[in-house]
Amino acid sequence: MHVLIIGAAGMLGRKLSEGLVSDGKIGDRAIKRLTLADAIAPKVPHGFTGDAACVTVDLTAPDAAASLLHAKPDVIFHLAAIVSGEAEVDFEKGYAVNLDGTRALFEEIRLAQKDGPWKPRLVFASSIAVFGGDMPDVIGDDYFHTPETSYGTQKAICELLLADYSRRGIFDGIAIRLPTVCVRPGAPNKAASGFFSGIIREPLAGLPAILPVSDDVRHWMASPRATVAFLIHAAEIDLSLMKNRRCITMPGTSVTVKEQIDALVRVAGTKLADLIERKRDPAIELIVSGWARGFNPQRAESLGFKADKEFDDIVRIHIQDELGGKLPNLG
Amino acid sequence: MHVLIIGAAGMLGRKLSEGLVSDGKIGDRAIKRLTLADAIAPKVPHGFTGDAACVTVDLTAPDAAASLLHAKPDVIFHLAAIVSGEAEVDFEKGYAVNLDGTRALFEEIRLAQKDGPWKPRLVFASSIAVFGGDMPDVIGDDYFHTPETSYGTQKAICELLLADYSRRGIFDGIAIRLPTVCVRPGAPNKAASGFFSGIIREPLAGLPAILPVSDDVRHWMASPRATVAFLIHAAEIDLSLMKNRRCITMPGTSVTVKEQIDALVRVAGTKLADLIERKRDPAIELIVSGWARGFNPQRAESLGFKADKEFDDIVRIHIQDELGGKLPNLG
Ligand SMILES: NC(=O)c1ccc[n+]([C@@H]2O[C@H](COP(=O)([O-])OP(=O)(O)OC[C@H]3O[C@@H](n4cnc5c(N)ncnc54)[C@H](O)[C@@H]3O)[C@@H](O)[C@H]2O)c1
Ligand SMILES: NC(=O)c1ccc[n+]([C@@H]2O[C@H](COP(=O)([O-])OP(=O)(O)OC[C@H]3O[C@@H](n4cnc5c(N)ncnc54)[C@H](O)[C@@H]3O)[C@@H](O)[C@H]2O)c1
Repeated sequence: MHVLIIGAAGMLGRKLSEGLVSDGKIGDRAIKRLTLADAIAPKVPHGFTGDAACVTVDLTAPDAAASLLHAKPDVIFHLAAIVSGEAEVDFEKGYAVNLDGTRALFEEIRLAQKDGPWKPRLVFASSIAVFGGDMPDVIGDDYFHTPETSYGTQKAICELLLADYSRRGIFDGIAIRLPTVCVRPGAPNKAASGFFSGIIREPLAGLPAILPVSDDVRHWMASPRATVAFLIHAAEIDLSLMKNRRCITMPGTSVTVKEQIDALVRVAGTKLADLIERKRDPAIELIVSGWARGFNPQRAESLGFKADKEFDDIVRIHIQDELGGKLPNLG
Repeated sequence: MHVLIIGAAGMLGRKLSEGLVSDGKIGDRAIKRLTLADAIAPKVPHGFTGDAACVTVDLTAPDAAASLLHAKPDVIFHLAAIVSGEAEVDFEKGYAVNLDGTRALFEEIRLAQKDGPWKPRLVFASSIAVFGGDMPDVIGDDYFHTPETSYGTQKAICELLLADYSRRGIFDGIAIRLPTVCVRPGAPNKAASGFFSGIIREPLAGLPAILPVSDDVRHWMASPRATVAFLIHAAEIDLSLMKNRRCITMPGTSVTVKEQIDALVRVAGTKLADLIERKRDPAIELIVSGWARGFNPQRAESLGFKADKEFDDIVRIHIQDELGGKLPNLG
């Protein structure tokens, strides 16, 4: 089968590419061809023995979608997006990439069907940012979407489009609302959510981290490993079980910052907690106060999506997958 | 103040124009200027003493939105739409009018702000078609939107856009989800929902009507008079009360077909019920089975939106507003 990943050079795109190459298949079909696309040049993971192609393309450019779909891939993972902060600052870019880029992709699939039958599986990375405003502590599967960011609005709109295109038989779509991925590897970034990863990642590298909110802030998280497993599972399952409700909140772990730090200490030792400096930032506190704290993701669980067991595991996964199992030597 | 109605030649557009002309004001501001726009030539209601302009324009044409907004109206009612059945049959036209036409309007307001501050009130006619699939008998205000038609999808997307543009301060938007308007005046049309009006309107005109579903089908309805009052109230209220949740289900009357017919008989006599012929249509039954049966529209009620008291009133309103108070003489 031919798999296309759009957004393949991003954090999740790279991990998904590696995961697919290491599995070698999706469900029981071998991956014979892999096309990796991104605005930044993607890289084919080591060890892939099939046909691989890397495409550097801006999804918002005219004909970008057509060029990507020309070979009619069987499975499409659509991960390309402008993140929340940037979509809030740059209105036009956010709508152009996150909405119009996605719609161009969907439209191109619809138009390509004039050449003959083709109904790819399309897995779309949505986000819990589709929720906003006053929310219960535990959000059920039928709770409404009232995003309070343009990014969340764009994700919610793409979900609606995906469901309509799927209902009409244009493609076989599923939108999975990813929790905040934690621990996000790499350098600290400016995302308002960055500290959820920073307070684990930096101490584990022997570096100081700043905590800009109170210890009792609660949020919904999943490890990169669990998140990649969600994406792959979404490409495998029988979507007829979802009927026309193709958009679904992923399981996760609901933890407070205090519970995160306690897990860090349990897994890696007390000294690491000393590297976390508390320095409240009202701007970040305000943004974070509008985020979901927890879900009851029954539908996803009944479809076989599985979260990390506890936050301790999320810390261990980071140590295993990013640090080669090594803890810092703090003397 | 200057009021613009887009979709002014439609059923609700005409009734809204008349309602505004008869009120003469919105809130406590006199209507000095009225612009009526539609793809079909609109007509200015009798009795308007201010400046009136009729514009025949296709909202999907380039520059259509710009030409309508040039004079920077204070209140915009956006009612232009392709109805459910047509949007389902003609995918491209539905998205072009219901989504792209609306987005072009919103974008034009955003871009016009470069010329100086202008923040119109924008009232958007959404629909309970944003709900779909398995639904509870009584849907709460925080129930999710999983439309099962392209029309419902387009309305749900416009709601999300409206909320985001409002949150960003681009305009002061409110989307009201209208119940099925009953009794819809005029000739029978091919809408799947047509019979809800037909079984009242046709007998009241002394004509036969066909009932294609079972008597226990339940649905959410409002009279044209109540619906026009919703639109006008939406233009008047203090939207800060809604915070960023600008999209809201309107009150209505949840009745079964049997209750409709009972009301008809109570208001206008037993003989009228004999004009209704039961002739089941599986296609219509299937469509209607996916429609909402009832709501608990607490938010709208707390904001002062008021439904008809009971279906008997809906029958009486049709007799008063459309038939000059006269019942048919069935001999
Ligand atoms: N990481 C999270 O916590 C999280 C949570 C919820 C949802 N998501 C979603 O998952 C997806 C992947 O997230 P990530 O953390 O890997 O993000 P990322 O920023 O690391 O990767 C996104 C990739 O998209 C690419 N891209 C952006 N604009 C593009 C364009 N116009 N054309 C082609 N490529 C373009 C970027 O170059 C980047 O490589 C995104 O859709 C994101 O919204 C992520
Ligand atoms: N009537 C109902 O039961 C009901 C229920 C829920 C929502 N609504 C919504 O209320 C609004 C008005 O409904 P209605 O019953 O008066 O519908 P209608 O069909 O009578 O009127 C719609 C008007 O929009 C105009 N229009 C369509 N495409 C246009 C375009 N491209 N440019 C300019 N004008 C265009 C049509 O010419 C028509 O006059 C619609 O948005 C509809 O979706 C109606």
